[in-house]
Amino acid sequence: MTGNTRPGGRTARVRGAVLQAAGDALAEHGLAGLDLADVARRAVVGKTTVYRRWGTVAGLVADLLLDMAEQSLPRADTGSLAGDLRANARLVQRTLSDPRQGALFKAVIAAATSDPRTAEALHGFYRTRIREWAPCVDLATARGEVPAGTDPDEVIRAVSAPLYYRLLASGDPVDEAAADTAAEAATAAARAGVFVR
Amino acid sequence: MTGNTRPGGRTARVRGAVLQAAGDALAEHGLAGLDLADVARRAVVGKTTVYRRWGTVAGLVADLLLDMAEQSLPRADTGSLAGDLRANARLVQRTLSDPRQGALFKAVIAAATSDPRTAEALHGFYRTRIREWAPCVDLATARGEVPAGTDPDEVIRAVSAPLYYRLLASGDPVDEAAADTAAEAATAAARAGVFVR
Repeated sequence: MTGNTRPGGRTARVRGAVLQAAGDALAEHGLAGLDLADVARRAVVGKTTVYRRWGTVAGLVADLLLDMAEQSLPRADTGSLAGDLRANARLVQRTLSDPRQGALFKAVIAAATSDPRTAEALHGFYRTRIREWAPCVDLATARGEVPAGTDPDEVIRAVSAPLYYRLLASGDPVDEAAADTAAEAATAAARAGVFVR
Repeated sequence: MTGNTRPGGRTARVRGAVLQAAGDALAEHGLAGLDLADVARRAVVGKTTVYRRWGTVAGLVADLLLDMAEQSLPRADTGSLAGDLRANARLVQRTLSDPRQGALFKAVIAAATSDPRTAEALHGFYRTRIREWAPCVDLATARGEVPAGTDPDEVIRAVSAPLYYRLLASGDPVDEAAADTAAEAATAAARAGVFVR
């Protein structure tokens, strides 16, 4: 087990190795190909440890999403709502268009359509990410860029939505141009007061 | 076989019954539960007919999506972009929050994440729907509501995206308020010139 730079002792190292292996397996084969014994083998960790700590595939995916939310980059602070939302959109775009990360998100989202526990973990991931980026909107409101009462969560969701729609539904490219358009559209709608509660 | 009001003779009636049965099975059990023999039984159609005409599950799902695109309601013409986009958003919202249709879309979108043929059929569905609604934007451009050069496809995609994001990613409710906000955000962004090519 090398290259793990996370803080913490053996427990944290084991978790890091197991979640890395789980993410690799998910990205390669989807949720149907995820198996705790295989993950233990890939992570070079005892099978008993994996079963005891994560119990089920759904439990492992839930912990993977928790870790992904914790490891995600913190929000930007560029001084303007347009700049912050562009940074957010490009972060989402890079994640979804990355071969490993994009495949991983597709696999987890597909699993969440039929498994309630995975769906709950997925929704928790987005709650954490939205909470991280919401202060950009509060700062913009304080600066007078958008009307008082603008709902930060709605603005952050509006930035991501077009990129996920392209990835999962329409199949249009998830490129930087799409990211910038998504950020500009959310900024324009927020300025126009669409997201005032 | 009763209640089929589509035009056409026996061939069209068989197709209608088979696609209805396929949609029911998909909504109930997801793609993993879709089986041509079971669909034939539900539709009271010969198994050989189903195998000969659709061949595979992917082929059947592709034809179901083609039919869903053809059967979808035509675009609205309310006289304003805001009105047309609200009508579009509410149509998408009603579809996604309908128990049968919502489950069907989730199942097909999940399947498309790992099956290229289903993905192609899904993208074709959205191309057809976007083409149907794009003239709303051209009319708005002609009326001077949005700047010349506004990309109709981008505007129509922007209306649907927040509703799909809620359904598939964040888990927030896909309700009428979400539909109206999606339509207003797309309208405001279009007016601000965000979607000019």
